[in-house]
Amino acid sequence: MRPGGLPSTNEHVNGHMASEPGRWSPRVLQALPLEQLPAVAAQIRALLIEQVCAAGGHLGPNLGVVELTIALHRIFHSPHDALVFDTGHQAYVHKMLTGRAAGFARLRKRGGLSGYPSRSESVHDWVENSHASTSLSYADGLAKAFAARGQDGRWVVPVVGDGALTGGLAFEALNNLGRAGHRRLVVVLNDNGRSYAPTQGALARHLQVLRQAVAGPEPGPGRNVFTDLGFAYLGPVDGHDLAAVEEALLRARTVGGPVVVHVVTVKGKGYAPAEGDATDRMHTVGVLDPATGTAAAGSAAVTWTNVFGSELARLAAQREDVVALTAAMQQPTGLQLFAERFPQRVFDVGIAEQHAVCSAAGLSMGGLHPVVAVYATFLNRAFDQLLMDVALHRLPVTLVLDRAGITGPDGASHHGMWDHTLLSVVPGLRLAAPRDGATLRELLAEALSDQDGPTVLRFPKGAVPADLPAVSRAGQVDLLTETGSDVLLVGFGAMAGACLAARDQLAERGLSVTVAAPRWALPVPPELITLAAGHRLTVTVEDSSRTGGLGTVLAQTCTDAAIGAPVHTMGLPRTFLTHGSRAELLASTGLLPDGITTAALAVLEAARRAA
Amino acid sequence: MRPGGLPSTNEHVNGHMASEPGRWSPRVLQALPLEQLPAVAAQIRALLIEQVCAAGGHLGPNLGVVELTIALHRIFHSPHDALVFDTGHQAYVHKMLTGRAAGFARLRKRGGLSGYPSRSESVHDWVENSHASTSLSYADGLAKAFAARGQDGRWVVPVVGDGALTGGLAFEALNNLGRAGHRRLVVVLNDNGRSYAPTQGALARHLQVLRQAVAGPEPGPGRNVFTDLGFAYLGPVDGHDLAAVEEALLRARTVGGPVVVHVVTVKGKGYAPAEGDATDRMHTVGVLDPATGTAAAGSAAVTWTNVFGSELARLAAQREDVVALTAAMQQPTGLQLFAERFPQRVFDVGIAEQHAVCSAAGLSMGGLHPVVAVYATFLNRAFDQLLMDVALHRLPVTLVLDRAGITGPDGASHHGMWDHTLLSVVPGLRLAAPRDGATLRELLAEALSDQDGPTVLRFPKGAVPADLPAVSRAGQVDLLTETGSDVLLVGFGAMAGACLAARDQLAERGLSVTVAAPRWALPVPPELITLAAGHRLTVTVEDSSRTGGLGTVLAQTCTDAAIGAPVHTMGLPRTFLTHGSRAELLASTGLLPDGITTAALAVLEAARRAA
Repeated sequence: MRPGGLPSTNEHVNGHMASEPGRWSPRVLQALPLEQLPAVAAQIRALLIEQVCAAGGHLGPNLGVVELTIALHRIFHSPHDALVFDTGHQAYVHKMLTGRAAGFARLRKRGGLSGYPSRSESVHDWVENSHASTSLSYADGLAKAFAARGQDGRWVVPVVGDGALTGGLAFEALNNLGRAGHRRLVVVLNDNGRSYAPTQGALARHLQVLRQAVAGPEPGPGRNVFTDLGFAYLGPVDGHDLAAVEEALLRARTVGGPVVVHVVTVKGKGYAPAEGDATDRMHTVGVLDPATGTAAAGSAAVTWTNVFGSELARLAAQREDVVALTAAMQQPTGLQLFAERFPQRVFDVGIAEQHAVCSAAGLSMGGLHPVVAVYATFLNRAFDQLLMDVALHRLPVTLVLDRAGITGPDGASHHGMWDHTLLSVVPGLRLAAPRDGATLRELLAEALSDQDGPTVLRFPKGAVPADLPAVSRAGQVDLLTETGSDVLLVGFGAMAGACLAARDQLAERGLSVTVAAPRWALPVPPELITLAAGHRLTVTVEDSSRTGGLGTVLAQTCTDAAIGAPVHTMGLPRTFLTHGSRAELLASTGLLPDGITTAALAVLEAARRAA
Repeated sequence: MRPGGLPSTNEHVNGHMASEPGRWSPRVLQALPLEQLPAVAAQIRALLIEQVCAAGGHLGPNLGVVELTIALHRIFHSPHDALVFDTGHQAYVHKMLTGRAAGFARLRKRGGLSGYPSRSESVHDWVENSHASTSLSYADGLAKAFAARGQDGRWVVPVVGDGALTGGLAFEALNNLGRAGHRRLVVVLNDNGRSYAPTQGALARHLQVLRQAVAGPEPGPGRNVFTDLGFAYLGPVDGHDLAAVEEALLRARTVGGPVVVHVVTVKGKGYAPAEGDATDRMHTVGVLDPATGTAAAGSAAVTWTNVFGSELARLAAQREDVVALTAAMQQPTGLQLFAERFPQRVFDVGIAEQHAVCSAAGLSMGGLHPVVAVYATFLNRAFDQLLMDVALHRLPVTLVLDRAGITGPDGASHHGMWDHTLLSVVPGLRLAAPRDGATLRELLAEALSDQDGPTVLRFPKGAVPADLPAVSRAGQVDLLTETGSDVLLVGFGAMAGACLAARDQLAERGLSVTVAAPRWALPVPPELITLAAGHRLTVTVEDSSRTGGLGTVLAQTCTDAAIGAPVHTMGLPRTFLTHGSRAELLASTGLLPDGITTAALAVLEAARRAA
């Protein structure tokens, strides 16, 4: 072992398989004798540590499933049998074992290997969505389809974490699977006791009780929540004991009905810096020195998340009624400082966005002011609760959407592209996007003071830019320049800076340009309409879906007001954007200064020709 | 008893309370001796049957909770204690007992009593949202808030059905409640074994086992799913034995931690036509003769639901790969005929829209073509699954949204106002709204033949109109008139008829008007843009949220194409619409012919002045 617990990639191993990752495959794996597998596992771990530390990505979860994934590929026959990995970030080992070890050199890079399963990469991958708690539902559908089509011989094997089981969708699926009568369905419960942080809730405690029972491959003699729901139960099994895991999976194949195999694993297994990380066992990492598990020296930029987290903690010191909720992402959403200062006022509800928002409605009815901190893409799960539970009752609840807009390397299911459109139909909801740290602090305070209905703040991933001070303010619109007459650039949130740069480019061409940055964009500030009426062209720029955001609502309002000047909307297209860096993806969607300038000039030219 | 099992409203009862419904209140109720309560219960039942048969509404669920609701108001002290009724249609008795018995004469009428709890009606009502499975989350929030604000003496009592427990949100809440340490939280499980139809799934079977245990108020000696999750468990209790229910609730107050009281009730109790109704125990009824429980004679109009149901059954006879899913609403969504003919091909997943759509993704991956039949408003719950599980994988899954647009008497949480906007951001999704029975049949067949991504059909509640044949077709746009030059009226789905009538009104004023009815509206047919370019004004009319629907997408596309003629969008406002008849609400939102004509003339006039 090298310093920091890093295993050597050079240690001697027997046989062909273990020494050539590029030739790893289920078939080769199945031909190996059991005694050679620990060497393969060691090599996988070394490769994981080396490559993930170089590229950034999900480390802890994958270190925990090395032996489990090897066993799955030996006991089942992918892709004839369907291995469905819940919350796909635990699929790196699966990728390595299905011919993609070499691809890790370009992990999560544009055009490179996805950080999640990807059907375009391999026939062994089924589910690309990395939102949690879906695998059991896919499994129910797949098993029903295989049965209907006479493919009863195919096994369906969802691999689901204890964290993902806290999501209601997983329960809905268990409720169905427990009675559907599938004969070849094995639920592999990868229980590492953690989501990011330790898994919360009553089910986690129940699993803990089960974990403490005597381990073994015999069916558990007693009842538990799974047997209550119609499953056979096998376990608990030490997930790092290859022989035991294989034996349990073999046993599961003999049950003849739906079965849960309870596999106990250690998140971060085999890498001391990960096993020793109290926060989240190195759930996701940036670029690290693999020997020490620490980031390369350099200036740690202040992020939007940091600004939010420190400001919320500051405001909460003055406001006893402020409480915070997270769906199992306390640290990533910036609530750590708040939690340290006010541990009784932060609630981790599990991977349960629906409950986060609906219980926030209850908290608000009871007289508190809840702040739900969530990644923008995960708001999808709680739209109904925001609309029907919070907004219908006009309850003052604040949602803070981190990772709004393009996020980058996590790809299609992590971009925060959808929230603004969803929010645009919610009656009484106020939406703001801060453009810098100063406005984030201001708007957060305003949101917490709002007494009538939901308020939402959205901001992107990454470093917060230098403050962009306003020259003047008109109602809820900050003007970042003097008022011009040709083009009004409306930069929402983080797009304000790009609009300022585009304005310089347009000014060089002799155009008189105004840059406006709305503070609250829902409802649309009337001052924005007045401004639009005073220019030949309005261009709105937002880091969210082009349809249904600020631009389309403003355009509709201008049409209502019989303003003839066009409103050109710029935003993200109606498509799934793949992984890549935020800058690459912004460039490809035209949301950098050059793109804005080009678009504005094109619309002016088209209008000139039409006239 | 009168014929049909209807109890007399005139039978002799002792005391003041029972004889004057207008004076019923929790306080009066608490003062009554136990032996007078059966008479009160009988009087409530008689009133329920009389009034609900006169107005239409939820009958079976309320007949089942008469004794339970009486007991709740005697053992707890509303509104100091919070009684939170899940899926508020079981709150009629609660309304009667809190001073609103007289209001039932205008039940579900515009300006009259809501069919659900309503905070504007009473301080005893907490939750107006009638989407299922929310009460436990509200309870978690309320209990936390009461504790934080030093109001520890207040009890929180969610009343949740066995059907609502199949929704994942309820599980998320149980997972939280079981560890939150609330000392005064009583979950009342109103177990009638049914949603509309018998409740599906493994949990229902587990409850059945518990129901068969010896009843009594002592804590159940063994383990069950609730005790696994950290609750004490009391029951099962006969929910029509007032003394037993009261005793169990009193016992629950002594537990000192979260407790589930398992109350077994009979849906439709005390009314023979309801108890004898095999479909859904008269879950909801229209206007009925209370003596017989049958509808007054008259022509039963053919509904959109009927057309869909019979056509799906017809197509499925030719297509073995077609399967159907429902979230506990097989009969209301029109799947009954399909289920009778192909019982192995329909799946009732419980009140679990997330699982319905996510397991449909799995079914589709496995080679079948799933049709998810769901009310439009409940699609909210499955937006993430539609986007991330179906669309991201480009899976051919068909969603059929019944009750799209204004539904009427069920009020704010049942209007299907939100679906179109949500769908507009989903990449690759195709959306159609049939305008009559003929197009519904055509479009359903096309949807089932689509091989690339999700297809969605939406149609409203009620009778299907006479067919509106096209004069010609351009791509995906049916032209219902010859092509004019002044005004293009785009009537989406059920709005086509209103547009035809408005066209006659506009023609009388000398305007040359075209009526276009897009078949598939997402993606926007290019022919619609060409048509818009050929008119001075386009008016889009749709029975859904004004923002983000067909009109705004068309307007955006026209702006992109530098078409100067305005696109005026008509649709439902960004507000919650209360209950009333569909016609009343369409009129109030301007979506009848007069409103369309008025709007078109106003925009033309504004454009004339601006020019």
